[in-house]
Amino acid sequence: MDRAILLPALKNIATRLRIDSIRSTSEAGSGHPTSCMSMADLAAALFFAEMRFDPKDPHNPDADRFVLSKGHAAPILYAAWAEAGAFAREELLKLRTIGSDLEGHPTPRLPFVDVATGSLGQGICAAIGTALNARRIRSSYRTYVLLGDGETAEGSVWEAADVGSLDALDNLCGLTDVNGLGQSRATMWSHDMDQFARRWRAFGWHAIVIDGHDMGAILDALAEARATKGQPTMILARTIKGKGVSFVEGKDGWHGKAFKKGEEMDRAIAELEKQFVPVPADGPAANLAAHIEKPAARPHAVESPKPPAPPAYTLGDLVATREAYGTAIAKLGDVDSRIVALDADVKNSTFSDKFEKAHPDRFFENFIAEQVMVGSAMGLAARGAIPFPSTFACFLTRAADFVRMAAISNVNVKLAGSHAGVSIGEDGPSQMALEDLAMFRAEPNYAVVYPCDAVSTERLIAEIAYHPGPAYMRTSRPKTAVIYGNDERFPLGGLKVLRQSANDVATVVGAGVTVFEALAAYDQLKATGTAIRVIDLYSLSPIDRDGLVAAAKATRGTLITVEDHYPVGGVGDAVAAAVADAGVTVHRLAVREIPRSGKPEELLDRFGISAKHIVQQVQEIQGVQ
Amino acid sequence: MDRAILLPALKNIATRLRIDSIRSTSEAGSGHPTSCMSMADLAAALFFAEMRFDPKDPHNPDADRFVLSKGHAAPILYAAWAEAGAFAREELLKLRTIGSDLEGHPTPRLPFVDVATGSLGQGICAAIGTALNARRIRSSYRTYVLLGDGETAEGSVWEAADVGSLDALDNLCGLTDVNGLGQSRATMWSHDMDQFARRWRAFGWHAIVIDGHDMGAILDALAEARATKGQPTMILARTIKGKGVSFVEGKDGWHGKAFKKGEEMDRAIAELEKQFVPVPADGPAANLAAHIEKPAARPHAVESPKPPAPPAYTLGDLVATREAYGTAIAKLGDVDSRIVALDADVKNSTFSDKFEKAHPDRFFENFIAEQVMVGSAMGLAARGAIPFPSTFACFLTRAADFVRMAAISNVNVKLAGSHAGVSIGEDGPSQMALEDLAMFRAEPNYAVVYPCDAVSTERLIAEIAYHPGPAYMRTSRPKTAVIYGNDERFPLGGLKVLRQSANDVATVVGAGVTVFEALAAYDQLKATGTAIRVIDLYSLSPIDRDGLVAAAKATRGTLITVEDHYPVGGVGDAVAAAVADAGVTVHRLAVREIPRSGKPEELLDRFGISAKHIVQQVQEIQGVQ
Repeated sequence: MDRAILLPALKNIATRLRIDSIRSTSEAGSGHPTSCMSMADLAAALFFAEMRFDPKDPHNPDADRFVLSKGHAAPILYAAWAEAGAFAREELLKLRTIGSDLEGHPTPRLPFVDVATGSLGQGICAAIGTALNARRIRSSYRTYVLLGDGETAEGSVWEAADVGSLDALDNLCGLTDVNGLGQSRATMWSHDMDQFARRWRAFGWHAIVIDGHDMGAILDALAEARATKGQPTMILARTIKGKGVSFVEGKDGWHGKAFKKGEEMDRAIAELEKQFVPVPADGPAANLAAHIEKPAARPHAVESPKPPAPPAYTLGDLVATREAYGTAIAKLGDVDSRIVALDADVKNSTFSDKFEKAHPDRFFENFIAEQVMVGSAMGLAARGAIPFPSTFACFLTRAADFVRMAAISNVNVKLAGSHAGVSIGEDGPSQMALEDLAMFRAEPNYAVVYPCDAVSTERLIAEIAYHPGPAYMRTSRPKTAVIYGNDERFPLGGLKVLRQSANDVATVVGAGVTVFEALAAYDQLKATGTAIRVIDLYSLSPIDRDGLVAAAKATRGTLITVEDHYPVGGVGDAVAAAVADAGVTVHRLAVREIPRSGKPEELLDRFGISAKHIVQQVQEIQGVQ
Repeated sequence: MDRAILLPALKNIATRLRIDSIRSTSEAGSGHPTSCMSMADLAAALFFAEMRFDPKDPHNPDADRFVLSKGHAAPILYAAWAEAGAFAREELLKLRTIGSDLEGHPTPRLPFVDVATGSLGQGICAAIGTALNARRIRSSYRTYVLLGDGETAEGSVWEAADVGSLDALDNLCGLTDVNGLGQSRATMWSHDMDQFARRWRAFGWHAIVIDGHDMGAILDALAEARATKGQPTMILARTIKGKGVSFVEGKDGWHGKAFKKGEEMDRAIAELEKQFVPVPADGPAANLAAHIEKPAARPHAVESPKPPAPPAYTLGDLVATREAYGTAIAKLGDVDSRIVALDADVKNSTFSDKFEKAHPDRFFENFIAEQVMVGSAMGLAARGAIPFPSTFACFLTRAADFVRMAAISNVNVKLAGSHAGVSIGEDGPSQMALEDLAMFRAEPNYAVVYPCDAVSTERLIAEIAYHPGPAYMRTSRPKTAVIYGNDERFPLGGLKVLRQSANDVATVVGAGVTVFEALAAYDQLKATGTAIRVIDLYSLSPIDRDGLVAAAKATRGTLITVEDHYPVGGVGDAVAAAVADAGVTVHRLAVREIPRSGKPEELLDRFGISAKHIVQQVQEIQGVQ
């Protein structure tokens, strides 16, 4: 389209997006209109002159992706999609109401949102994932991600910057809306554009500095980004917060503040309306939405992979569950091209290197950067992959906020954390995950599993891979005996009763390494004539409430949980919450203080979760009974 | 000292540190000797020619600080302190054993360790804090922090880089040990030194590239760093992993691997021993440890601040606890110069801006970078400050790994998270903390408090400030009525019974905003002739187990918890765990699914934690009773 026609038409759209952002936030009585107004020209250019997408089919696999990393500018995202024809403009006035999916910050309840944003510095990580996904499905779609300038202070942005340039993601284009004002004050660098440019260039991106209200410059920069090969591009757009309304432009104190309905809002909108410029009423410029370039209508593939070969272990063999994890994801990858794995430079400890060896093109190295690893997995998952990011379980806490946002997005990420608990031994507390179960169980929609042997690990990998939504598997460092036959099944929400008799005086519930402590305690107690029931609680969320209650009722109403985890949020809490209304008593053995270095077996004992402590607990209860 | 004498003496120390690192890890059978060997020359120069400290009094307030950000190189840290005379060299052979404080990664169980490291990218954040602390106490001590090259991939490093240059911390000197090899493969940039230099320069640091095995170059760089004003310095040292032992030098596959005791270890040590060079036996070079420059023996100040003025609220006034938080820390700051506050660009929402107004020199802005905010607080706390970092509670999850390491360090950080739960309303789930209590309660040594009104907020701030160790306060967005008199006291581990009678059919336990839902439910039930007991559980860790049990026993064995938090790890789990052995039943009202935008009162109701739901729960239990 002729620029002489296009530019004023885009400017008018930008003005309309500003008006819509003001109107919807004023109606809601809250929101961030001035943060929308600074990026309105960028949004108009992206949606109506750059991106290839179908407003009625945002999930088309070849459609360009747009991630609003500065999620608080949600109103203009919604306005742009309404302008494009995805839904009726009137809906915008329902912003932030309980009956509308147009929430305060974007979530995938809306079909055109890939991942929830609103926690800054996450959208760009997800964008790395959607850009990687284009390679996976051999699509030419591009990913655009719009950041705030204040957001650039988040370290996760620089993790994404490194991965973007290392992976040479020239299908990725970032735009930073440099309006110079944060929430509480001027940002770190205000409008010093060189601060931004030199950082992005140092991190290997092609950086372009422009006036973010110069529509021609925006289009030129987007074209330059498209033409740039071998590296991603960051467009650094100098903008004015509140652009278009003179009494708020560039003023501090207007962050996150809606214009008051009535005189204040009316005055703002009147000012904007004066900025509309004439465009030919009968040409394409009158309705740019109708001229959005659509991707071909490729059918949305439904994959129905064959099941992987069954586990091939021998009872009694010693195999660490972390190693079985590596074998399991590699095997699943053999039969399902959606499976991808992500690492943070510990692939030889988590054994995700087995996946890399089998499927190098679907293995993504993030070096020591857990946030972008999980964030990028979120983007991959949003576009149809089934990603397995893994590292030491304790270092997944580095990405806790991503874990949280993945819950809100309800994306299909399958996290795995190795080296759980004190059983790692000599490396000491900094390397021991003792709160990971609390972190994942806290989220209401994660499946959480914790296998104790190689067979259950492999079976559970397939279970969580095809369970819709996020999931977490906890694995252990020490080698443990294979105790299940290769045909055994492990449905989510189940448990295994490993030992039982009619005379059991208590049920001991273990998971992971403590299953073996429970089995050892069983043997020791048996030698003294005392029988206990032993349960392997491999599934923590969902949890087999009925199975636990039945075991408790059959064993004098007594459950003893034992876990290589702090007492809060782990096995004990899970069991106690599940059986809360059943009138049974739960005794908890857990790690109750900050541990230290030592041999694994010394630590299990010192911190109260070894067979000896189980035996003592059983005997203590018997004394009472 | 004459360089002709000094350099060979330092080289000999470096060789000895390498030998010690090998010997101790071989004895332990695990550890990271090759990661120690690459940094041995840097360590020798720092400890024996640069830093001012007293090996026998590492806590001297004017002593230079050394933070080993690459914590896995702990053996050489220990070796250096032993060489300096802090303890006997024989102790090194107890590395990683359960009876020794020489753990696999450094912790402050050792007097010369300020903060635990071993989760990469954290030490440099703590170093920002110790450097800021020098300003606070007007000391000329310098902070040195040694990073690994792979560690540079962590986003937190760049958060620290920004804060270091913004705050012009020229008393801070970083050293990056660029040995080119990560755990599982070559690092992102191997030995491409320009990749490092351009990043640090872009972030405003003075960067110096050197050969990290050239002792003269190391000393020159350290002198240049000392002479550099207005910005911190990063010394980028090109090194060789495993330096000094030909059969491991620069070889992949040797990360985290001890030399096998016997022939392998002996061969390595023999090679190193050949590298000793002659130094004059009677000059200073023969014993550099004796020539370490010590800071003056300034007495370790014991501060005994006056108590702050009591709260000054009026019963019934509406004050958000987040606002009371701001008032409380500002008042505490009036009487105690150790109190500092840290922000991540939300000071006008958390009300930490009240502290900034009162004590601008003790207020540290980190912009939107939660990791460095918490990490720097850890460093400040390690050097005697009482730091209050605060942001939205949900964004503290961004620093979850720092929260974890602060537990291991047992440092005196006092975190506060505002905007807890669905009661924030329209901003939606990304801004709602619903798992923060789980995160903090999971750590065994955090005090966790959750006040419901302004008076309890202010009182609890003083409680947690002077409680040794880490602490967390959860505050809320909505204004709530002042329900306590200004003289009321709130000891940690207590609770308040707000309503009680002899006829109570159940005890409702609320905290924060749900206290008011419980009070409303009390009124509604009273109107129907049913009495309930109402508890404000302002202290979650520690928790008043006896008070809860007494209330339950007096109210038909029934506790109903109600919390603006997911069910895992919050109020309900805390209460259930506390009363587990008392034979009472705990019914839990909590947010059980991912919430959405809406009005606060709509959301409390929709997600099951409003007065209506409490009334229903009570009636349901009565039906059963």
